[in-house]
Amino acid sequence: MSETTYAQADAEGAGALAARAAALDAADPLAAVRDRFVLDDVVYLDGNSLGALPAAVPGRLDDVVRRQWGELRIRSWEESGWWTAPERIGDRIAPLVGAAPGQIVVGDSTSVNVFKAVVGAVRLAGEGRDEILVDATTFPTDGYIAESAARMTGCAVRPVAPADVPAALGPRTAAVLLNHVDYRTGRLHDLPSLTAAAHGAGAVAVWDLCHSAGALPVGLDEHGVDLAVGCTYKFLNGGPGSPAYLYVRSDLQERFDSPLPGWTSHAEPFGMRPAYEPAAGAVRGRVGTPDILSMLALEAALEVWDGVRIEEVRAKSLALTDFFLECVAAYVPGDRVVPVTPAAHAERGSQVALRCPDAGDVMKRLIARGVVGDFREPDVLRFGFTPLYVGFADAERAAGVLAQVL
Amino acid sequence: MSETTYAQADAEGAGALAARAAALDAADPLAAVRDRFVLDDVVYLDGNSLGALPAAVPGRLDDVVRRQWGELRIRSWEESGWWTAPERIGDRIAPLVGAAPGQIVVGDSTSVNVFKAVVGAVRLAGEGRDEILVDATTFPTDGYIAESAARMTGCAVRPVAPADVPAALGPRTAAVLLNHVDYRTGRLHDLPSLTAAAHGAGAVAVWDLCHSAGALPVGLDEHGVDLAVGCTYKFLNGGPGSPAYLYVRSDLQERFDSPLPGWTSHAEPFGMRPAYEPAAGAVRGRVGTPDILSMLALEAALEVWDGVRIEEVRAKSLALTDFFLECVAAYVPGDRVVPVTPAAHAERGSQVALRCPDAGDVMKRLIARGVVGDFREPDVLRFGFTPLYVGFADAERAAGVLAQVL
Repeated sequence: MSETTYAQADAEGAGALAARAAALDAADPLAAVRDRFVLDDVVYLDGNSLGALPAAVPGRLDDVVRRQWGELRIRSWEESGWWTAPERIGDRIAPLVGAAPGQIVVGDSTSVNVFKAVVGAVRLAGEGRDEILVDATTFPTDGYIAESAARMTGCAVRPVAPADVPAALGPRTAAVLLNHVDYRTGRLHDLPSLTAAAHGAGAVAVWDLCHSAGALPVGLDEHGVDLAVGCTYKFLNGGPGSPAYLYVRSDLQERFDSPLPGWTSHAEPFGMRPAYEPAAGAVRGRVGTPDILSMLALEAALEVWDGVRIEEVRAKSLALTDFFLECVAAYVPGDRVVPVTPAAHAERGSQVALRCPDAGDVMKRLIARGVVGDFREPDVLRFGFTPLYVGFADAERAAGVLAQVL
Repeated sequence: MSETTYAQADAEGAGALAARAAALDAADPLAAVRDRFVLDDVVYLDGNSLGALPAAVPGRLDDVVRRQWGELRIRSWEESGWWTAPERIGDRIAPLVGAAPGQIVVGDSTSVNVFKAVVGAVRLAGEGRDEILVDATTFPTDGYIAESAARMTGCAVRPVAPADVPAALGPRTAAVLLNHVDYRTGRLHDLPSLTAAAHGAGAVAVWDLCHSAGALPVGLDEHGVDLAVGCTYKFLNGGPGSPAYLYVRSDLQERFDSPLPGWTSHAEPFGMRPAYEPAAGAVRGRVGTPDILSMLALEAALEVWDGVRIEEVRAKSLALTDFFLECVAAYVPGDRVVPVTPAAHAERGSQVALRCPDAGDVMKRLIARGVVGDFREPDVLRFGFTPLYVGFADAERAAGVLAQVL
């Protein structure tokens, strides 16, 4: 296609696609949820890195600081519900990932929770199993932490592409650590079948939900996942570095043996007993004193989910990423960017990753023009679509600006 | 002493002691620092559990939330200095505990940092050393976590009273984990000599500074401490559950081998390398994504230290606890409460613990009358004195109310 022809196609396509975007936005059942966030003119497609600010957070946090801390001070541990926040907020996240109450506890970073989960999984797997299969394309921290967990439990880590996990499983496999959605490509892995495969081999399945929780149904209980971790600052909009969470399936909790048995996971934390005795339930996944300011900001942030069903979110997410890919195909010369996110819905998370040789520079130019995604080494443009606040017109505009800067 | 006689002594003593308190407050060089906090009519003697709210925090946190997160969003990781906050705030704490810059990193809970420090210490100690000496009266979490660290490194924990550590040290001692100030009794342990004793036996000294940092000089560098941890929500006033910190002495950093090698401690965190390569310096103690809201609230809280020398704080702390003990002796019938905090300055932290058979009930009555301390099992009334905002009149009033409720 010559430049002139492309420009014409662009202009024609743009009109039609913009009209389609407007119609899609007008029919969007989640459109009103956007008002629950603080947004501006920027097209923000980096909610898979840091979710936008929910409007309820500043006021809530101000109350937590000025009244709960400033006035009630120490009394707030009981009177303001600080002490039980990790379990309470875990139960708020639970329906979003398909978990019944009492199985999720909030606290610590994702990395720390990966450590708890992988060591816990190896201990659940029992004697004679000394191999941990880890997603070979994992976000690095999972791999680093799994290596440490392996070293400290007498195991070895074996990196495996998720699709190759069934073939790699064997009688020595203790645990499998997989990402539900790949952070770079946006590929959605098959949690039900990979969990079943792990169980078939007698291994424990640990899932990292960082890039799926809040974007699509996870079905932890339904699919019999053993342990899971996730962050809360991406599609759950909890704020920068907000606390992560740990899911331990209820029937495994009694045998869950944490490598970080801090005092707040004790059966009687204020008994100040010299011997550790683990609490029952999700509380067993706690470690130290909960980080209240960040945790209660997250609790306020989760109110954006009131009345929102994750299935609706998934439907909009797929429509948005389909539409964005269509706009990119229409506006951007074919050889300039190459989608690496799978076309098949069953294999797609809520982001679109485009390979582009000069991705680092291109992203800078996009950001300068009000379209914020991010760059991942070595050559990936990453655009995250948070269905709660991103619309179809945003997708069309982002593709148009991308075509302009290329 | 009959009740009548005591009441007279009380009345006379009260007048004289109240006058002394007023004079001491008038001469207090730290008196003006109290205005840097949000306080009310309550006598708040629980700053050793949760420090009062520094006045700078609410406004700062509001800016972090509304502007840095809400407007700049993802850009704040660079533009608002989020990424480097753990080291920057560590350097802000450093002078308070006698550390040169570049050795403290803020993040995670105290429990998680105890795990890093104890495992790191065992690894530094090297082969052939498989025993960890742990303060037998430690705050429980240190003991629980040390047990886990021992289990995962092939060591055994041996509980020892701090005074007995020198005799317990031997060629198999890998590490010693001690509290600088005992959380229950307020006893200050001899950090210089116990550290020297550990070194004399070739062991690594790990100190928990939760109850000393911000209350008295610690002298980490001066005394050659190897590793240290501490919380920031007591005498550092960082807010409920604010992030803890880890000190690794600079000459040990290159050999410090963390059991929690998360991605933010990687030499090139955004390189997304599959193999872990630790960063140089204090950064090596980081784990996951830093918890920005809590961390920047802490940074604002640390501004109360501007122009304050820890030696002045120590002088006032000792004067306050001396004076409180004197008031208690004057006002309270002699057999009703028994101080368990040592009388000797060299053995006293910044709290006064009084043994009292019905301590739980007594503390409830004190709190109802506006004197807030706390109760520790089984029979201890604990009163923490934060010299930055507690005055001598507060100490006199607390002792008077205590006498009334008993």
